[in-house]
Amino acid sequence: MIPRYSRPEMTQIWEPETKFQIWFEIEAHAMDALADLGVVPKEAAKAVWERGGFDVARIDEIEREVKHDVIAFLTSLQEHVGEEARFVHQGMTSSDVLDTCLNVQLVRAADLIIADLEALLAVLKRRAYEHRTTVTIGRSHGIHAEPTTFGLKLAQAYAEFDRCLDRMRAAREEVATCAISGAVGTFANIDPRVEEHVAAKMGLKPEPVSTQVIPRDRHAMYFATLGVVASSVERLAVEIRHLQRTEVLEAEEYFSPGQKGSSAMPHKRNPVLTENLTGLARLVRGYAVPAMENVALWHERDISHSSVERMIGPDATVTLDFALVRLTGVMDKLLVYPDRMQKNLDRMGGLIHSQRVLLALTQAGVSREDAYRLVQRNAMKVWESDGRESLLELLKGDPDVSAALSNEEIESRFDLAYHLKQVDTIFARVFGE
Amino acid sequence: MIPRYSRPEMTQIWEPETKFQIWFEIEAHAMDALADLGVVPKEAAKAVWERGGFDVARIDEIEREVKHDVIAFLTSLQEHVGEEARFVHQGMTSSDVLDTCLNVQLVRAADLIIADLEALLAVLKRRAYEHRTTVTIGRSHGIHAEPTTFGLKLAQAYAEFDRCLDRMRAAREEVATCAISGAVGTFANIDPRVEEHVAAKMGLKPEPVSTQVIPRDRHAMYFATLGVVASSVERLAVEIRHLQRTEVLEAEEYFSPGQKGSSAMPHKRNPVLTENLTGLARLVRGYAVPAMENVALWHERDISHSSVERMIGPDATVTLDFALVRLTGVMDKLLVYPDRMQKNLDRMGGLIHSQRVLLALTQAGVSREDAYRLVQRNAMKVWESDGRESLLELLKGDPDVSAALSNEEIESRFDLAYHLKQVDTIFARVFGE
Amino acid sequence: MIPRYSRPEMTQIWEPETKFQIWFEIEAHAMDALADLGVVPKEAAKAVWERGGFDVARIDEIEREVKHDVIAFLTSLQEHVGEEARFVHQGMTSSDVLDTCLNVQLVRAADLIIADLEALLAVLKRRAYEHRTTVTIGRSHGIHAEPTTFGLKLAQAYAEFDRCLDRMRAAREEVATCAISGAVGTFANIDPRVEEHVAAKMGLKPEPVSTQVIPRDRHAMYFATLGVVASSVERLAVEIRHLQRTEVLEAEEYFSPGQKGSSAMPHKRNPVLTENLTGLARLVRGYAVPAMENVALWHERDISHSSVERMIGPDATVTLDFALVRLTGVMDKLLVYPDRMQKNLDRMGGLIHSQRVLLALTQAGVSREDAYRLVQRNAMKVWESDGRESLLELLKGDPDVSAALSNEEIESRFDLAYHLKQVDTIFARVFGE
Amino acid sequence: MIPRYSRPEMTQIWEPETKFQIWFEIEAHAMDALADLGVVPKEAAKAVWERGGFDVARIDEIEREVKHDVIAFLTSLQEHVGEEARFVHQGMTSSDVLDTCLNVQLVRAADLIIADLEALLAVLKRRAYEHRTTVTIGRSHGIHAEPTTFGLKLAQAYAEFDRCLDRMRAAREEVATCAISGAVGTFANIDPRVEEHVAAKMGLKPEPVSTQVIPRDRHAMYFATLGVVASSVERLAVEIRHLQRTEVLEAEEYFSPGQKGSSAMPHKRNPVLTENLTGLARLVRGYAVPAMENVALWHERDISHSSVERMIGPDATVTLDFALVRLTGVMDKLLVYPDRMQKNLDRMGGLIHSQRVLLALTQAGVSREDAYRLVQRNAMKVWESDGRESLLELLKGDPDVSAALSNEEIESRFDLAYHLKQVDTIFARVFGE
Repeated sequence: MIPRYSRPEMTQIWEPETKFQIWFEIEAHAMDALADLGVVPKEAAKAVWERGGFDVARIDEIEREVKHDVIAFLTSLQEHVGEEARFVHQGMTSSDVLDTCLNVQLVRAADLIIADLEALLAVLKRRAYEHRTTVTIGRSHGIHAEPTTFGLKLAQAYAEFDRCLDRMRAAREEVATCAISGAVGTFANIDPRVEEHVAAKMGLKPEPVSTQVIPRDRHAMYFATLGVVASSVERLAVEIRHLQRTEVLEAEEYFSPGQKGSSAMPHKRNPVLTENLTGLARLVRGYAVPAMENVALWHERDISHSSVERMIGPDATVTLDFALVRLTGVMDKLLVYPDRMQKNLDRMGGLIHSQRVLLALTQAGVSREDAYRLVQRNAMKVWESDGRESLLELLKGDPDVSAALSNEEIESRFDLAYHLKQVDTIFARVFGE
Repeated sequence: MIPRYSRPEMTQIWEPETKFQIWFEIEAHAMDALADLGVVPKEAAKAVWERGGFDVARIDEIEREVKHDVIAFLTSLQEHVGEEARFVHQGMTSSDVLDTCLNVQLVRAADLIIADLEALLAVLKRRAYEHRTTVTIGRSHGIHAEPTTFGLKLAQAYAEFDRCLDRMRAAREEVATCAISGAVGTFANIDPRVEEHVAAKMGLKPEPVSTQVIPRDRHAMYFATLGVVASSVERLAVEIRHLQRTEVLEAEEYFSPGQKGSSAMPHKRNPVLTENLTGLARLVRGYAVPAMENVALWHERDISHSSVERMIGPDATVTLDFALVRLTGVMDKLLVYPDRMQKNLDRMGGLIHSQRVLLALTQAGVSREDAYRLVQRNAMKVWESDGRESLLELLKGDPDVSAALSNEEIESRFDLAYHLKQVDTIFARVFGE
Repeated sequence: MIPRYSRPEMTQIWEPETKFQIWFEIEAHAMDALADLGVVPKEAAKAVWERGGFDVARIDEIEREVKHDVIAFLTSLQEHVGEEARFVHQGMTSSDVLDTCLNVQLVRAADLIIADLEALLAVLKRRAYEHRTTVTIGRSHGIHAEPTTFGLKLAQAYAEFDRCLDRMRAAREEVATCAISGAVGTFANIDPRVEEHVAAKMGLKPEPVSTQVIPRDRHAMYFATLGVVASSVERLAVEIRHLQRTEVLEAEEYFSPGQKGSSAMPHKRNPVLTENLTGLARLVRGYAVPAMENVALWHERDISHSSVERMIGPDATVTLDFALVRLTGVMDKLLVYPDRMQKNLDRMGGLIHSQRVLLALTQAGVSREDAYRLVQRNAMKVWESDGRESLLELLKGDPDVSAALSNEEIESRFDLAYHLKQVDTIFARVFGE
Repeated sequence: MIPRYSRPEMTQIWEPETKFQIWFEIEAHAMDALADLGVVPKEAAKAVWERGGFDVARIDEIEREVKHDVIAFLTSLQEHVGEEARFVHQGMTSSDVLDTCLNVQLVRAADLIIADLEALLAVLKRRAYEHRTTVTIGRSHGIHAEPTTFGLKLAQAYAEFDRCLDRMRAAREEVATCAISGAVGTFANIDPRVEEHVAAKMGLKPEPVSTQVIPRDRHAMYFATLGVVASSVERLAVEIRHLQRTEVLEAEEYFSPGQKGSSAMPHKRNPVLTENLTGLARLVRGYAVPAMENVALWHERDISHSSVERMIGPDATVTLDFALVRLTGVMDKLLVYPDRMQKNLDRMGGLIHSQRVLLALTQAGVSREDAYRLVQRNAMKVWESDGRESLLELLKGDPDVSAALSNEEIESRFDLAYHLKQVDTIFARVFGE
């Protein structure tokens, strides 16, 4: 996480101030529950809410001595609350606070990412409808295949990020748990009702069974999900990069006045945002593996997961949030060149219609093997002519083809509209409209 | 995937025979739909079902020439069906068959893994109840913390694998889609109703929008999920390995008569199965990254994902299936030594009760800081004596402690039963009973 | 490792037959050393060499009972050698045999990969010289930048794989060690001279200090190196895939007669080999992480590494070997289209010369900022005209430019040969000639 | 990279101030070379050195407008140098500066890590000699195997980190290159002698052939090497964690006065530093994969690698540096408990000598199979008695054993010193003394 690839909305979730505020709320809510159960005086709980507070610099100072962050926090809290603070944290263990706090942070981060995805989906939908019938060549293996529309490309991206939205919601649900269960999770020194109360107040569910920690398979799933979402970001980013290539140039990232593409080459307009997204995706993906390695903690807990989470907690969420917002901006302002799409479509001398002729031949009674051979031998001539030869003309001139199909029948297979007839069906499937 | 770590139930899903049988069914069901739509003759569809078949060796032979597996299959099919076969695959593209087949295989693999998880859960539940009140020391950082029960350890594992079960069901759902949408997914040459028919027959849902391929974010999520499940396998495996250590020896993998632990040291009984599971988890986890890299295919598709899936499709599912079954066997026959658990529990001179004394002191009016210091100074003496000193006796002899608590009050904090009082609550949460 | 992506030269290294043969040699050489030291009778050593042998099926059968592969092997050996076999393996531990064998296999695998790299380098060198002055556009960000030559592209690949060759040699050196040091590496029951003898005979160095195992940092380095080499394979593969795009088509994988690019579209010629290589690279890279996780074995050893190595040992080496040979074939037969390179070069209306004009302006006294602006404003017109405008003409018509440079001076900056003047220098650096 | 896991020596390498200082030196040295070649005025070069400078805040400000960091830097430089600055960067491209700078930073980072390793090795050597003959049980699979010494454990760690030192030196060498080769690496606008001059001044070698960028296989190797070193850190950390377990307690991290092990349990002394190192290792390892994915840049370059390197450049080097220094501290102050080692060694009733008896039996003419069975049947009794039975006594009482060996012969196999006889040999191998 570096400022260059960060948004304040997300970074503030990970700031010390935020963390200690969440700790405070957990401890104070726990006090309420303990007071209701008669374990601590009601005035003590009241005092915590009223005089409670902490001082980040002071906590740092204490931690340098005691080498324990929760104890440092509690000491600082005591300095604000006074004498009644001795009831705070009663029967709890540090992880009760740390783990519940981490999950609150991950839930908030998930909420931002979910909002990011919703914003991205809105843009993708708008632009998909805008280019619903903008014909463009579909490419497999980087090679012209058959026509599709630019709207369909975007509908595909929409459907993919819609799945990502579902996944993020599931990942959020996975980590939305709270544990206030004591040293090894037995509730020996704290009533389970305290956990239930804190969970409800913090917007979480009680963890059914914790040890000292909330089990890390939940977090592994969360970070793995971020990795998958990042991979979908990469897919769309790579698509744009391809479309902006000099020789293709069917779409282009918006290029602001005053922007310089290259210090040495004034003519350059590079897809730097989507290239950047490609790199960011690698990072987010890379954080999934350490998160999975964190699952196998020793016995009721060891603390090896902590350093990993202190890093990848912010790194993964901040980076993905930034990436999604950047991608939304790219897609929102993307320059689309339908003329160029048409030009590229035309450049292969009609090769893209080869399949339809193949089908026409088989329907006219030619064996599939023969039909394939007939089409291929003409297609290869066009291919080798770099699109200067016309497949239509060659086919019409091939006696074996003519034997099966009339010129009119051949010509009817070179109709672009033919390829668009199910666009509405697909849009209905994707957008449900 | 090697025989040593494979079960035939899973490997057969990945055998050529199975794959071609699924291809056959896809093509044949598609023929039915095409016939219903009047695109191909009904007799042709009938002929495919009646005379349809293929020959694996023959397909291999043809593929060596044409370098295209689906064409090779179709040729072999034609050799069985005869002339009507020219209608087969009409308007479809190879990926329609390949991707739908892969998803059928992944769904079947998921079903096996789901069954594995259910079997594991049944064993974990049985053994959790068996050891519901078998007291054992809970350990954080590998260091004695406070008492828990062996049943609670197993209840935690149960809850974790129950989450894995939910995840696998979601992963199965993710990949249970079918695409019969043609060269770039536009249905230009094939009616969407064909896809709907084939999907229904193969137990899948239609892919809302495919390009040439079913989008690989679905598969990335699937393999990432396998990686998370494998990480949970590792956690339980590591727990057993720890418990079997010579100095701990609270539980042990079953050791069959005739088994040899070491070629050189006849006395050894090693936790080799759970060590093996630890390694298998690394493998399954490692397959998640290539699966995520597969998402960003170029434009409407490139074929870079194919080699990855040919390897990790079988490797990841076969290995995880094997691991889960092995883990179930280990847990089923695990030798548990309650006496040894009690002996280990006792060896620390009562240190494990330190927190309860701390709480008693604060409840008696001592400040938290002072209470911590009082307990710690006695605890350190016990620690340094390697458990020969008794914390109870030292506390009773400490005048600062005695000033706050009577001997009876101190003694009451050294009661093991105290730690078990919420076991039923937790079991109810986990097992819902 | 699947037959589709395997070469027999590499797979045979990993066959049971090979493994047991290496085991036999290790045990027999150890016997010689033990006999020389007077620990075992000379006749016993002789008997092992003379009557020694094993039976793979028999070993499998025994292993099913004793669940220990080395004991099973020794039993089979005894069945061939007879009574003197009781001296075999004396003072050794299974890992002495297993680890030394694994390293022999990894060394042999490295030797194959080294040979693969040498073959690839020879092809790259030949083709680099063939296209030393074949001018082509250099691209950054997928956008035309300035001219380079196709030979330079290949020289870069040569230099990169030459580094890979050095790395593989270092990786080979890393794992070329032998351990015959007993149960925990103390040589308690076996003289270190046995290790030295076996090492020398097997082409290895003695491991300075082993525990029970040869330390796995060596293997981690080996597999990480394979991952880096695979990433270089991916780089060149991606280059070819880009060059074969319909709109670029500057080079193409060889397309054999009879080959079919698509079952549905007879016109397709896809870069399927290099796409395949891209996927294979993902796989090999993915094996590096489990290999690194294998390093932290517990105490003097645990066996978690074993399952990982049984899989990735063959998988990583077989896949990389196959990929390198495939890449060599692709590069050897690559179809290169200089005409098309020239055509692409020309399509941008001279934009690629923008930097030289920029430099000329600054040398003529225009500030860098102003010069950049002057060139950019003309370049953008060309860019937006899709290359129909000519940068040369626009510049000549721009009064601010004309104020600094004469028409002749401008024209002189549009010379292609200018860009080739250091090609020989670079070739001398790379090929040392 | 977060302050908690950072040392200022390493973080300052990555600060903007440092980066721009390196940029300045590269540009200024390039000016010297350009002046010597007569391309720019000597006074301009002189002016750059004399009046050169930059302002980080100002650069940030400019970058926000032009969205290009090198152009922003050059503008700021110009504001300091004045008019002569227009000659700066002539014929160069941004990547010439960026890539050469990154490599300077990576070289400096490697130098710190090399120094860290040397410091760690010194500590390991000192402590290895201190405990050269401190007998302790060797463990395989976590189970007692045979005696070794604590010094041998440390000698192993020394040898492993000595290999890491070699690897880091090689990794440093890999990235110590400089490229000043222009827009696509052809030296079209800049003489190769400029590169040679800058390389020499910055302590680098010229990159034999760059494209626009220095090839990323070099960096992939660098980060992969960091991952392997981190894995060795984990191995030693895990060893300490195991030794500190309550039941083992043969060694312990130093516990400073005032430190608190647990907020809830005052008795705890946890191996938190080595647990932390285990987590840090996961992080560093995780950065290797994105670094490998960075290799396959498109054509002469794309900028996807940049975001990855901005993050993992600091993250990986800062984290590994911190981890090595922390590990060195842990090993320097490690509390070692020889008495406890002896106590653990004795607890198995002599089982650890089983192999020597096995060998004695075979040497006395018993077949290996029979000898194994004889020893195992007695060993299992000891095992099941939890060390209360004595293997020595059981063997003496077993008539089948007595038939082959006298009591004296049996007793002689239970001698600890026997296991130490090759310690000096191994130390000589490792420390070369």
